[in-house]
Amino acid sequence: MIQTLQWTDAGVVFIDQTRLPTEEVYVTCRTYTEVADAIVTMIVRGAPAIGVAAAMGVALGTRDAKAATAAELLPQFEKICDALAATRPTAVNLFWAIRRMKDRFAALVATGKSVDQIRSTLIDESKQMHAEDVAACVAMGKNGAALLPKTGGVLTHCNAGALATCGYGTALGVIRAAYEAGARFNVYADETRPFLQGSRLTAWELMKDGIPTTVISDNMAGAMMQQGKIGAVVLGADRIAANGDVANKIGTYTVAILAKEHGIPFYVAAPWSTVDLATPDGGHIPIEQRSPREVTHLAGKQIAPDNAVVENPAFDVTPHRYITAIITERGVARPSFAESLARLAG
Amino acid sequence: MIQTLQWTDAGVVFIDQTRLPTEEVYVTCRTYTEVADAIVTMIVRGAPAIGVAAAMGVALGTRDAKAATAAELLPQFEKICDALAATRPTAVNLFWAIRRMKDRFAALVATGKSVDQIRSTLIDESKQMHAEDVAACVAMGKNGAALLPKTGGVLTHCNAGALATCGYGTALGVIRAAYEAGARFNVYADETRPFLQGSRLTAWELMKDGIPTTVISDNMAGAMMQQGKIGAVVLGADRIAANGDVANKIGTYTVAILAKEHGIPFYVAAPWSTVDLATPDGGHIPIEQRSPREVTHLAGKQIAPDNAVVENPAFDVTPHRYITAIITERGVARPSFAESLARLAG
Repeated sequence: MIQTLQWTDAGVVFIDQTRLPTEEVYVTCRTYTEVADAIVTMIVRGAPAIGVAAAMGVALGTRDAKAATAAELLPQFEKICDALAATRPTAVNLFWAIRRMKDRFAALVATGKSVDQIRSTLIDESKQMHAEDVAACVAMGKNGAALLPKTGGVLTHCNAGALATCGYGTALGVIRAAYEAGARFNVYADETRPFLQGSRLTAWELMKDGIPTTVISDNMAGAMMQQGKIGAVVLGADRIAANGDVANKIGTYTVAILAKEHGIPFYVAAPWSTVDLATPDGGHIPIEQRSPREVTHLAGKQIAPDNAVVENPAFDVTPHRYITAIITERGVARPSFAESLARLAG
Repeated sequence: MIQTLQWTDAGVVFIDQTRLPTEEVYVTCRTYTEVADAIVTMIVRGAPAIGVAAAMGVALGTRDAKAATAAELLPQFEKICDALAATRPTAVNLFWAIRRMKDRFAALVATGKSVDQIRSTLIDESKQMHAEDVAACVAMGKNGAALLPKTGGVLTHCNAGALATCGYGTALGVIRAAYEAGARFNVYADETRPFLQGSRLTAWELMKDGIPTTVISDNMAGAMMQQGKIGAVVLGADRIAANGDVANKIGTYTVAILAKEHGIPFYVAAPWSTVDLATPDGGHIPIEQRSPREVTHLAGKQIAPDNAVVENPAFDVTPHRYITAIITERGVARPSFAESLARLAG
């Protein structure tokens, strides 16, 4: 099993996703600022994974903060949470995870727990979130597997796999579960410029599992659909608004339009921690703009003219009307999503 | 002015498009086989440019063939034409250009011309085709300029510019003509994976002309349209069937669907030599599959796992129903294209 991230006494250990697929290297972040840097530089990426990474960063920073009392610890704890919250703006799991650590901290303080008890409980909490994330992926797989075709092809975009989570994956978890249930389709992996999560990460982890995968440039997805090679689309999410609008990796919106035009079902798989009922619709989701260099350079090689102007939004918003269903560990939401998501919220 | 290709006594000189935008290097192909290799390796690319390149290759090979009589020259001439015709299958301009050289050769033989006369006439013919190509681009620009918006943004895909022709460009010729007429829109250039003609070539030549250009990954085009940044799409063609279906660079079909979904006009600009009335529809256009390595590697850097399976169709077919108008040097064709193209054929 791929160990995307794990807690160790030495720090949080990540597989370095910037060096895959040619090098499988693990890095240990020994301070919370190193964890924050790992999120910013995308050593770890994927909404569920960065949520748990942030929680572990909070636990690590709190463990190492110099404080004799909870009162001394509090301002440092706040500073640690702020630093981790400032890493990336779009995936709501990050804020959900930090919120959960804050709530836990507040409850521990309110019940008069010692600094040592607070420290160890926050570590346990982050480990618990890791375990819950894997369990949520497995449940998503069970809930979604039957939606995929038995043969033919399934398109995915970016990486919503084991590498985007604490294991098994969201969209790729659904694909894995379908395979475990006997399906034998081919996966088409959009390479997903500019960061190439599809060609570098999705192809790598599916090939490790022996699931047949074909890498295509993003601009080939339409032609594959036109040729009848794609029977369904399944991909992840970075934030799902209350009305079902989905922010996900740039290009998701294009894939959704292509799926609609070809009459192909379009599925989103995400843990409940990605659902943000406080955000009414996609227009309210902040979209991260990343460095122009991701577009103008690749592996140090310049591929655009000097001083070229670029856009580099890391995400786009797919309006809910393009989405066939949203697969979560709590169940499968279908239109109208405002109602079905509210129902799953319980 | 950019010299994409030109005849010299030493051979056919090409700007090496595989080394742009970081290096502006010219290579001289001294034999017809070197010209054929330049087409295969995409030192020269773009349907109109490879047509004229092939004609110059035929002229070069015929000039240097050892033959005392036209009868001795004929089998060598056929061999030269066959080698150039085998370079790439999709762009019809290649076959059109070779056909024109063959017809000229046959007429010269039929009228009893000497080997020296045949040689010099074929050189003149290829130079004439070069001049005609530039003139066609300028005429396309005049015919199409008013179709583009005055402000806002215009999206293009791949490179249908000076570098794809003998100068001025087809789609970029229309953009240049609109600028010359006072329009001040921003050009959005899809980077166009896998060969990156948009980021490497389109951005380079438009920036040289001072036309504001923003490079985007192919999968950002949908988001740019969603945000209202794109007022029109204009791009080139490699072959236009009698019913108006258009084969063009992979990803064109996706852009066409995005344009339709957003109600944005979608224009194709191409010289008449790209129109192939002998091909009834897009289903009959052969689509070149290129090396998997273009997808799995970039500038020598591996970006997909070892042994990854890929698809790499160099072109796709956009059905005519997605096309607002086809801009040629003879005029602008609109639906129904079967009728409008037949009318322009005269």
